[in-house]
Amino acid sequence: MSTTSTTLSEVREKDLKYNLHSWSAQAGLKPEVITKAEGIYFWNEEGKRFYDMSSQLVNVNIGHGNKKVIKAIKDQADKIPFIGPAFALDVRAEAAKKIVEIAPDNMAKVFFTNAGAEANENAIKIARMVTGKYKILSAYRSYHGATYGAANLTGEPRRFASEPGIPGFVKFVGPYPYRGPIEFKNEEEATKYYLTLLREQIEYEGPETIAAIFQESVVGSNGILIPPKGWMQGVRDLCNEFGIMMVCDEVMAGWGRTGEWFAINNWNVEPDMITFAKGVTCGYTQLGGVIVSKKIADYFEKNTLWCGLTYSAHPMGCAAACATIDVYKEENLIERSKEMGAVLGEILEDIKAKHACVGDVRYIGLFSAIELVKDKETKEPLVPYGKDPEGVMKKILNMLRSEGFWNYSHENILIVAPPLIIKENELRDAMNIMDNVLDFVDNVIGK
Amino acid sequence: MSTTSTTLSEVREKDLKYNLHSWSAQAGLKPEVITKAEGIYFWNEEGKRFYDMSSQLVNVNIGHGNKKVIKAIKDQADKIPFIGPAFALDVRAEAAKKIVEIAPDNMAKVFFTNAGAEANENAIKIARMVTGKYKILSAYRSYHGATYGAANLTGEPRRFASEPGIPGFVKFVGPYPYRGPIEFKNEEEATKYYLTLLREQIEYEGPETIAAIFQESVVGSNGILIPPKGWMQGVRDLCNEFGIMMVCDEVMAGWGRTGEWFAINNWNVEPDMITFAKGVTCGYTQLGGVIVSKKIADYFEKNTLWCGLTYSAHPMGCAAACATIDVYKEENLIERSKEMGAVLGEILEDIKAKHACVGDVRYIGLFSAIELVKDKETKEPLVPYGKDPEGVMKKILNMLRSEGFWNYSHENILIVAPPLIIKENELRDAMNIMDNVLDFVDNVIGK
Repeated sequence: MSTTSTTLSEVREKDLKYNLHSWSAQAGLKPEVITKAEGIYFWNEEGKRFYDMSSQLVNVNIGHGNKKVIKAIKDQADKIPFIGPAFALDVRAEAAKKIVEIAPDNMAKVFFTNAGAEANENAIKIARMVTGKYKILSAYRSYHGATYGAANLTGEPRRFASEPGIPGFVKFVGPYPYRGPIEFKNEEEATKYYLTLLREQIEYEGPETIAAIFQESVVGSNGILIPPKGWMQGVRDLCNEFGIMMVCDEVMAGWGRTGEWFAINNWNVEPDMITFAKGVTCGYTQLGGVIVSKKIADYFEKNTLWCGLTYSAHPMGCAAACATIDVYKEENLIERSKEMGAVLGEILEDIKAKHACVGDVRYIGLFSAIELVKDKETKEPLVPYGKDPEGVMKKILNMLRSEGFWNYSHENILIVAPPLIIKENELRDAMNIMDNVLDFVDNVIGK
Repeated sequence: MSTTSTTLSEVREKDLKYNLHSWSAQAGLKPEVITKAEGIYFWNEEGKRFYDMSSQLVNVNIGHGNKKVIKAIKDQADKIPFIGPAFALDVRAEAAKKIVEIAPDNMAKVFFTNAGAEANENAIKIARMVTGKYKILSAYRSYHGATYGAANLTGEPRRFASEPGIPGFVKFVGPYPYRGPIEFKNEEEATKYYLTLLREQIEYEGPETIAAIFQESVVGSNGILIPPKGWMQGVRDLCNEFGIMMVCDEVMAGWGRTGEWFAINNWNVEPDMITFAKGVTCGYTQLGGVIVSKKIADYFEKNTLWCGLTYSAHPMGCAAACATIDVYKEENLIERSKEMGAVLGEILEDIKAKHACVGDVRYIGLFSAIELVKDKETKEPLVPYGKDPEGVMKKILNMLRSEGFWNYSHENILIVAPPLIIKENELRDAMNIMDNVLDFVDNVIGK
């Protein structure tokens, strides 16, 4: 597949010479050089094509190269690419209106940020301002971003570089029935168990000190953990009982990913705030934000909102958001996510039935995970927590990639979350690659 | 100036209905609706033109509507508007290269973020990772951003919404000779005084616990506080002596604002890290980052960089940065900043001599402040700290704006920082407006 072009890898060399790459030691990195991206595919400089089976970082929901969004960006660049956040601007007003209109009925206003970490940062501050309380609860096995506030919400090792931690950030154990300490007969029993734990923790932390409970509506990078029936309503009820703000982090789970505009819609629960980013613009330009309830919006009529950033409601981000929301609507992508999600679910169940190495599959819309184990009965993870001594997970990713299937993993879990525009035949073709690679994993565990 | 157009203020109404505005109670806000921006001017929907005398939020250094940067953005939108940060991309490699080439000689690599707050967030984490120490020193009267880490660096009231604070963040009193507790004979004496304080604080905090000292190279929003001669070298020496990282926040002061690429160049000192944003793209699209020294870059060859964000090194931001840096070079804007800065300095000295209400003027390049007092001798501020009971500062801003001069204020200080492309006659015309408004302020204080 390699060519003899003299420019080949010059870009990579320059990239590695001058750029620091995320979450990595830099020595030995060999990043693919990307030269083209279109629909559900992208290409490296050698012309190799990849299925984008994680929509990059679960953000390119509408796929690459969407002409409508690109046009909106170019038009805004010609008009007013930037004006400070204190000013009103057509596209800024319109983006907020469009977002509030698709949000749950109790939502009223938007505070815009650059991306998801900042969205969570501002939601923390808003919860503290409005309630006058300071403790913030969030779940282990969660990722909310890497800035200090967002990282202190985060319930996995990417938090540790942001410690010593901020006072008042408390972690609880969220629902993960597959690895619960007991076997649950059904979802309702799991919900009851986890809600009992949460209530006890709220009571012992002191409800009068707790400003908010943050959750990913569906936990994303930490394994597509889908809340069991009744959980979200249970959390809402606890929040109502104790005067706590319920905040749904929909940075990854929102924007049609789960077959609804926002994942929380799957359970018909109204949170006090929704944080968002990623799918709102699908990354074409940066945008994130916090959607707040009418009650919170009213609070800030007379009270100062102590939040701000130079690029709040950036015109280019707002223009991209308006066009992207139109694309979701015009291409029926929310419904498509649900339909293709059903197909993906069937494929994943087949894969689970076939492969000894697959302990669990979880899916909602086009948001899914394959959890790899050494033994289906004991559920022993394929790699121990926080380690991959023999580089097995890395090897699996590399095998997928060499076959043109691009996604990412977390611990012993493979994330599969293609663009919502994927067609059934494309989905089946791509998942065939996965099927074949899992044969190798079955071999690794000797079953 | 008002018209009878039916669309007039519809945008404002929609904006206020759906958007939360920064740093404000929302009731009574009446944001200008902006419909055009070109060069050093922008226009509201009634066709009123404003001199952009703060370059928006001191970020639009090249002025509005620059065709070269707009073209670069449009071209990148057509090509690859987004690809994840793990990949190499021509424009991503080129942007980092261009930035390292203009940075001080000891600098080697860039970690890109969306904006300035995140740049500082990541610099904090990097300093803690590399040194293994946890305390972070920063100055009162500073602004470093509003996310938790950046806000905990910040030494003014916009920090308070991000408290209780992160353990280990310690504030020192940076140089502000005009309001020092004693009268200094000259800059050297002021430097000696403030360095003595800083050394004592380092020793009593325990140098073995201090990871970094963060400073705005020239303090921006808190009043354009220019370090006295020898201060920066003195801080560098203390950092060397005690194994502390010296971090220069150049989010506002960088990119030609002070007549140098980076403000720290004014004192020929090499910091360990430079954080940047704003002027790197002038806001046309969002970009920020941390420039790290060769020594730090080497550390992360074998050690994991625990930093990351979906939009690190965003292609649209990198494309805008490449073009913006070219514009600075091709239009000689760094030199122009120095030349026009000399003119601005003369004007400000005249203003200070003429007006009883002007206690101090500070300027470096096109970065300047007018500090208003009730009495030149006692230096009593025009408004008490944190208060403006009679709305005097607001009234001054409104008078300036009604005359077409747009800028912003902080406490008793007016910030003046026009785009670097401003011409001498434009600068003089705009400052005439300021001159006239200050007559009113003289009247207010009865002198």
